Amino acid sequence: MNVASLARYVPILKWGRTYGRNALTGDVLAAVIVTIMLIPQSLAYALLAGLPPEAGLYASIAPIILYAIFGTSRALAVGPVAVVSLMTAAAIGNIADQSTMGYAVAALTLAALSGAILLVMGLLKLGFLANFLSHPVIAGFITASGILIATSQIKHILGISAGGDTLPEMVISLVGNLSATNWITLVIGVSATTFLFWVRKGLKPLLCRIRLGPRLADMVTKAGPVLVVMVTTAAVWGLGLDAEGIRIVGVVPQGLPPLTLPSFSTDLIRLLLLPALLISVIGFVESVSVAQTLAAKKRQRIDPNQELIGLGVANLGAAFTGGYPVTGGFARSVVNFDAGAETPAAGIFAALGLSIAAIALTPLIYFLPTATLAATIIVAVLSLVDFSILKRSWTYSKADFSAVAATILLTLGLGVETGVSAGVVLSIALHLYKSSRPHLAEVGLVPGTQHFRNIHRHSVLTDPTLLTIRIDESLYFANARFLEDYVADRVATDRPIRNVVLMCSAINEIDLSALESLEAINHRLETIDVKLHLSEVKGPVMDRLKKSDFLDLLTGQVFLSQYDAMRALAPEQALT
Amino acid sequence: MNVASLARYVPILKWGRTYGRNALTGDVLAAVIVTIMLIPQSLAYALLAGLPPEAGLYASIAPIILYAIFGTSRALAVGPVAVVSLMTAAAIGNIADQSTMGYAVAALTLAALSGAILLVMGLLKLGFLANFLSHPVIAGFITASGILIATSQIKHILGISAGGDTLPEMVISLVGNLSATNWITLVIGVSATTFLFWVRKGLKPLLCRIRLGPRLADMVTKAGPVLVVMVTTAAVWGLGLDAEGIRIVGVVPQGLPPLTLPSFSTDLIRLLLLPALLISVIGFVESVSVAQTLAAKKRQRIDPNQELIGLGVANLGAAFTGGYPVTGGFARSVVNFDAGAETPAAGIFAALGLSIAAIALTPLIYFLPTATLAATIIVAVLSLVDFSILKRSWTYSKADFSAVAATILLTLGLGVETGVSAGVVLSIALHLYKSSRPHLAEVGLVPGTQHFRNIHRHSVLTDPTLLTIRIDESLYFANARFLEDYVADRVATDRPIRNVVLMCSAINEIDLSALESLEAINHRLETIDVKLHLSEVKGPVMDRLKKSDFLDLLTGQVFLSQYDAMRALAPEQALT
Repeated sequence: MNVASLARYVPILKWGRTYGRNALTGDVLAAVIVTIMLIPQSLAYALLAGLPPEAGLYASIAPIILYAIFGTSRALAVGPVAVVSLMTAAAIGNIADQSTMGYAVAALTLAALSGAILLVMGLLKLGFLANFLSHPVIAGFITASGILIATSQIKHILGISAGGDTLPEMVISLVGNLSATNWITLVIGVSATTFLFWVRKGLKPLLCRIRLGPRLADMVTKAGPVLVVMVTTAAVWGLGLDAEGIRIVGVVPQGLPPLTLPSFSTDLIRLLLLPALLISVIGFVESVSVAQTLAAKKRQRIDPNQELIGLGVANLGAAFTGGYPVTGGFARSVVNFDAGAETPAAGIFAALGLSIAAIALTPLIYFLPTATLAATIIVAVLSLVDFSILKRSWTYSKADFSAVAATILLTLGLGVETGVSAGVVLSIALHLYKSSRPHLAEVGLVPGTQHFRNIHRHSVLTDPTLLTIRIDESLYFANARFLEDYVADRVATDRPIRNVVLMCSAINEIDLSALESLEAINHRLETIDVKLHLSEVKGPVMDRLKKSDFLDLLTGQVFLSQYDAMRALAPEQALT
Repeated sequence: MNVASLARYVPILKWGRTYGRNALTGDVLAAVIVTIMLIPQSLAYALLAGLPPEAGLYASIAPIILYAIFGTSRALAVGPVAVVSLMTAAAIGNIADQSTMGYAVAALTLAALSGAILLVMGLLKLGFLANFLSHPVIAGFITASGILIATSQIKHILGISAGGDTLPEMVISLVGNLSATNWITLVIGVSATTFLFWVRKGLKPLLCRIRLGPRLADMVTKAGPVLVVMVTTAAVWGLGLDAEGIRIVGVVPQGLPPLTLPSFSTDLIRLLLLPALLISVIGFVESVSVAQTLAAKKRQRIDPNQELIGLGVANLGAAFTGGYPVTGGFARSVVNFDAGAETPAAGIFAALGLSIAAIALTPLIYFLPTATLAATIIVAVLSLVDFSILKRSWTYSKADFSAVAATILLTLGLGVETGVSAGVVLSIALHLYKSSRPHLAEVGLVPGTQHFRNIHRHSVLTDPTLLTIRIDESLYFANARFLEDYVADRVATDRPIRNVVLMCSAINEIDLSALESLEAINHRLETIDVKLHLSEVKGPVMDRLKKSDFLDLLTGQVFLSQYDAMRALAPEQALT
């Protein structure tokens, strides 16, 4: 393999060679800002995933470097994200108890499986599989996940214990334990949440009014969580609140990510395979859509199949360095881009910043209350919750609406895995249902022209012995039988018919099932002396038909145009 | 509900009112011939299903009457068929041991579930679900089932015990028990099989040569199995072969079908639900295709949703009268039709004939060797085995070929349920894969015309600032991202582009996912000052788009024709 083809799979070999001082400046600045944003986020998402806080930091170091080497997006920032953290907790929660070794190993295994799935999909160019997740299903799933995540964090704000994988379970568990609320925790949690909301909604306009540039204002806003972390940590330490029952982060090991091994137990792998697949696909879809939006702004390209490889290697990296499943995050990638990141090197510098944090800063967060992390999560995920998709899909298409509604309800009611799986199955089923009833029109000749239009909508010339059906869809197994039924019905009720013409101008493909349906139609019409003809068959479809013996069996002819068919089969009408 | 609308659900109310002497003669004659054919077949298929022989008779009595009341086909003969019997054995084999009460009750429950599924599908008009089974999958499945069925009967021909649900299991089990072969059984089995093959292939031409009419010759041929049954039974009785270790049918209860109750155990229902669904759908698809072929010959109609109701009620009937899942059989329906059946009353008369057999003839088959029944099955099912579908699909479409090949291999190797499920999933996946890469063509103006053609195939006029893409497929979730990628790639590599036109002449639908993709494309192009336009949007698609705010967001225009677009966006080219 020469360097050029190697560079296809290792994009760093391409951009790395022309790396210069300009890019360096932009990348370093972006890295500083992303690092500041990632420290509290990493800790918080680890908490959400049910893992010790350092797992979040570790999941942001090796993966970010590996993605920088193998990924194609210049701005995507990889690491732990909210939805994937929730899915991790849901997948592992049934297998092992939190804060046991088994739980951490299961998280590593999940990352390894997810990495392997993404890598294999990338190498086999199976990126199209992500298309099975329709936009409405993703939108519904993300909204429902946001609600589940926010609800799951309420226990930390209240300072109580609670569990559950679904909304009803969570609510029942919360209500049942409400009496144990720790009031100091609640004060800290609510203050932190309120402050973070204000930072999002109120601070930025304020900063703009005092003439800070909108970009700088944005950057300061992103540092809000760091400020809350510092203030609440200082408060707990200064006032000795840990003695009052406030849950704190406690001892976090100091040092670089450790080398770890996922489990290779086949039982565990079997249990985690479906969750890993769902995590991979959802992570990939989210990641690619962010990457594509950012790349488009600079007229850059991303290669979806190479993105699979990049994300796959990043997850494998997480599996071997104490992390858990990662993907490209929306908020952090936008921050990275806006802060001026020019190349994936920004990611490498951010990883450097996080390594320093892991080595030097972990003792400082001993007194960090988990309520603060919960507040960070709640504020971050509530921006995911967006019910407008329900209204939007309702006006646009009832089928899409039902897919969204089912995904939201099932995700909330039965958990993330059931919800998203049901959404996928439902949207495929709805699509097949819709295309199983192709639009058919019986057409006639517009007088004085060579055009054919629907006989029910236009005043057109027809002939009682001639039935012309225009099919507005490719013919394949799901809709072939519909055409069979339609033709059978029409000739059974309309006895003068002697010729049936199928106008194929909108048919892009005829699969083997449809071919056999056409043969059945041809054969059944033959038994009652009615001829079957085709018209306006597209080139590639005709080439395919020539490979079968259908054209030999066809009782009628194949006409180049519908007008030719009309002239041959109902000359009186065509010539008037 | 008045009589007319009741008659929609109970077709007998329609044809029954005009029933006359002519129809009666035809129906009675057909019933006699079908009865003679059904007696050995019913016994044999019950054996195949692992049930006592009388279950086959019972499954042919009530179901046939109920179908006559509720079905819409004039000629379909309902009862036990080979493939469904095999699927029954496969479904129940893992749950209970053969010839236990549990096994028989499970068969009743399977029939009840299958009946309920069919009935619900019919009432909810879900007949389209059967479309998910593509022709190639069915063809592969039937062929593989034929092989499995024939192999499963070899043990009866050899007079040994053997088991297995898959071809490898069966072969290993047969080989392991080969030494126990009973030679007298083998002689009877092989003679019966050879004779029946000769009846099929050699007798009919012979009868024609001695001037028997071809139809009468056909009828005599169909009586072959009855002759074999009589001869071998007489031989066993006369020569006392049952003392030599030949397995015989033995005592069969005399009398009408008993009233029975399926089990309502939720555990059993859960285990049988998927098999029942597969049996229902496969039975329905086979049945409808036979019914439609026969109805077409007389320009009659069948109503697929009412067929579901008819088959559903027939299966419920089987569940409550000691039977097992039934469906419309191909061979017997053709015989019924050819013998002159005019109405479903032929079925009622056949049920009468079978009732007489159940009451009076059962003592006569005490000495009937199971090897004879096995021979009947083997000869009947080998006509199902047809590998030509492999060659046919190979030349026509590699995607269809892979679905057939996978279905055959998985059915043989892993059993009927896995085989057919995998076939369904694979054909849906292949379809989605194909449609996830819609055919796109960049088009230009054919000089001197207003037509646009592919720039790579024709010499056409183009403009460097204008990219026109014709999409030859409806846009939906599975292919929307493909278009996103394509446009992103093109504008990233081709910098002079200022306008992108999507030519929508072949687009029949745009779902919400595709709409959001179009919005993303529009938005991304906007950030680099490229305008997005549409042309030749079909009426219904335009109506749908107007319900969203896409047309307000669109940076460019919607042109009625592509020529208008060219004139507006690249006037120098359009006017040359």
